[in-house]
Amino acid sequence: MTQTQWFPVAGVKLAAIEAGIKKANRKDLVVIEVAEGSRVAGVFTTNRFQAAPVRVARRNLAETAPRYLMINTGYANAGTGDKGFAYCEETCLLLSELAHCPPAAVLPFSTGVIGQAFPMKPFEDGLPLALDALDEHGWGRAAEGIMTTDTVPKVASRRIELDGDTITITGIAKGAGMIKPNMATMLGFIATDAKVAQPLLNQWVKSLADRSFNRITVDGDTSTNDACMLIASGQAGEEISDADGRPAALLHQALEAVFVDLAQALIRDAEGATKFVSIEVSGADSDQDAQAVAETIGHSPLVKTALFASDPNWGRILAAVGRAPIEHLEVEKVSVWLDDVQIVAEGGVADSYTEEQGARVMARPDITIRVDLGTGDGRGQVWTCDFSYDYVKINAEYRT
Amino acid sequence: MTQTQWFPVAGVKLAAIEAGIKKANRKDLVVIEVAEGSRVAGVFTTNRFQAAPVRVARRNLAETAPRYLMINTGYANAGTGDKGFAYCEETCLLLSELAHCPPAAVLPFSTGVIGQAFPMKPFEDGLPLALDALDEHGWGRAAEGIMTTDTVPKVASRRIELDGDTITITGIAKGAGMIKPNMATMLGFIATDAKVAQPLLNQWVKSLADRSFNRITVDGDTSTNDACMLIASGQAGEEISDADGRPAALLHQALEAVFVDLAQALIRDAEGATKFVSIEVSGADSDQDAQAVAETIGHSPLVKTALFASDPNWGRILAAVGRAPIEHLEVEKVSVWLDDVQIVAEGGVADSYTEEQGARVMARPDITIRVDLGTGDGRGQVWTCDFSYDYVKINAEYRT
Repeated sequence: MTQTQWFPVAGVKLAAIEAGIKKANRKDLVVIEVAEGSRVAGVFTTNRFQAAPVRVARRNLAETAPRYLMINTGYANAGTGDKGFAYCEETCLLLSELAHCPPAAVLPFSTGVIGQAFPMKPFEDGLPLALDALDEHGWGRAAEGIMTTDTVPKVASRRIELDGDTITITGIAKGAGMIKPNMATMLGFIATDAKVAQPLLNQWVKSLADRSFNRITVDGDTSTNDACMLIASGQAGEEISDADGRPAALLHQALEAVFVDLAQALIRDAEGATKFVSIEVSGADSDQDAQAVAETIGHSPLVKTALFASDPNWGRILAAVGRAPIEHLEVEKVSVWLDDVQIVAEGGVADSYTEEQGARVMARPDITIRVDLGTGDGRGQVWTCDFSYDYVKINAEYRT
Repeated sequence: MTQTQWFPVAGVKLAAIEAGIKKANRKDLVVIEVAEGSRVAGVFTTNRFQAAPVRVARRNLAETAPRYLMINTGYANAGTGDKGFAYCEETCLLLSELAHCPPAAVLPFSTGVIGQAFPMKPFEDGLPLALDALDEHGWGRAAEGIMTTDTVPKVASRRIELDGDTITITGIAKGAGMIKPNMATMLGFIATDAKVAQPLLNQWVKSLADRSFNRITVDGDTSTNDACMLIASGQAGEEISDADGRPAALLHQALEAVFVDLAQALIRDAEGATKFVSIEVSGADSDQDAQAVAETIGHSPLVKTALFASDPNWGRILAAVGRAPIEHLEVEKVSVWLDDVQIVAEGGVADSYTEEQGARVMARPDITIRVDLGTGDGRGQVWTCDFSYDYVKINAEYRT
């Protein structure tokens, strides 16, 4: 992703500085400034233990139009009680005073260790430097600045023509864990210079997250700090407010491409992951059922260790399907493919299947597991990776 | 568990032989003979892909009183379609002809690789030898004979006095996986010489499994072959049919001790497990809610890696509580203890808590995580282990 060319977005400036919040010599404080008139919408973690910044950001977002997004790494400021909440508000106040905006126009985001409040001094010293460094070309540095255990910064970008106007979309994200679930926080910040009506933006951030970040599964754990923000600076093109119109459809499609790029980049950077796995389920009674089956497969340590071992152990996929939390399943209608190779037909091994075919497909770095339940039209999809590392060797040696 | 003394159970004989089903020089075929008049009850996997032996055993159990239980390792005979089903029935027929009983009086159980039918020859050659070897003192060998990736055989035994009669209970079990989820099949066979009415036995096997094997959690995967059988040979004492009577209460208590011993032995033998962890949840709106919270904590890779690292990372426990699938949770009422040390009070770190206390407790090989939700009287419990191995080192190094 680092090689991806990205485009600046008019009306959005970014800075990332080394504030020394927890460790020296690493970018750990990011400020994003959005031009007056920008619209911002977000989705936040569904975990009921919500970090202080999540609660403050939710509240502020409901109160006034945001002008600044402030992200720190090092400390998650979760499980820090009233003190953590007060510290979070204090940092918003600091930035608002320096930037001459209402405190509620600042949205705070944190990622890092849970349970310890961060020190205030790095914010006091760092925020003025960050404001000075704001730059439309700051996306790459900001992508680095929000990293925790990520090994590469993640930026994605698209440009489209819309009724003669050039519309730009650029976004950054940081990783969800897996074999490296230390921080486990997913943060995404995606901006476009298009002018999108607020109700539509609110609706889109949910549907786009559902089609991207909510389709990646790592270890089943959710974070206290997850957040994904969509910014429309309104500097380019005509206002888009009709969800059914062609401009909306084209813009939504381009936004989805950026969201999906970022989500898949998180999976590819899950440390130790040796395979990118797409799980596609069809033929379910409903989309919800299909998604539940895809997630059960994607969460199964048995399936994931078999993927790492390149072992076409389809029995594990069937066992995961068999315990998925759906009402109606007819096992004798289930089919499974690994890429183009059918491994299961009518709930048992396919007649045409050979271990050689399975082993050939499983050796690939990108694999699609396709499951058809044969009872309806519901569809679902999950992107995940394998469970690797030495500990898995024991599973990898199975059947040898 | 190997050192545990066990007592023979009148009316129950066992044999374990090297039939060469998959590998040479290992006990892989076990036969358990129960005296005429014995009563047998069982619980089976809830996975909808059920192995052929599970379907046959269920059917036979409903049809007639069992005389033989036959267990093979090497092949699970799951996902093997009609052929696997026919092979399974064939082995039951073989044994029934040799033993002069109806085929339906044989209950088959298999554990091993999914998707390949087993060869018949080892059964043809081995079953006569097994019948010759039947012995009331065969429990230890049978415990070895049902092992797959288990590292130690698991036997548990109790003797109690009941109205002047000596009642014996002895059981064997084989492991559920975890870091070693290759086979993932849990099998348990528990026998008593007490005379228990069939309806009570049916009821007990469910409640006892719920209080033991259903309280251990490993990786969230369920097997196609799980089964747990309770045998009452009826050779000792008076008939017990009143669930509310004192004899029933005492016998149930002793049975529960054996079930729990075996279930905990499975957890202690999860390969790579360095810690035995009991998760106790109280104060929930219902027992069901409490169990859901306990299971969410017990399945969390984040919690389990922290346990391996002896890192008192209580934020991960809170995060797991926060995403548990229950309707009602008041985060500010949640308390958490590690053994005797309170780490969370009112949803945040406890004032009295120090990292030193937490680290001291986390270093212990047996740890209890106690969570009180503060809203009701519901209770739940789960036994689990940590996620260990080199791959976890990355998580272990977190916060250092």
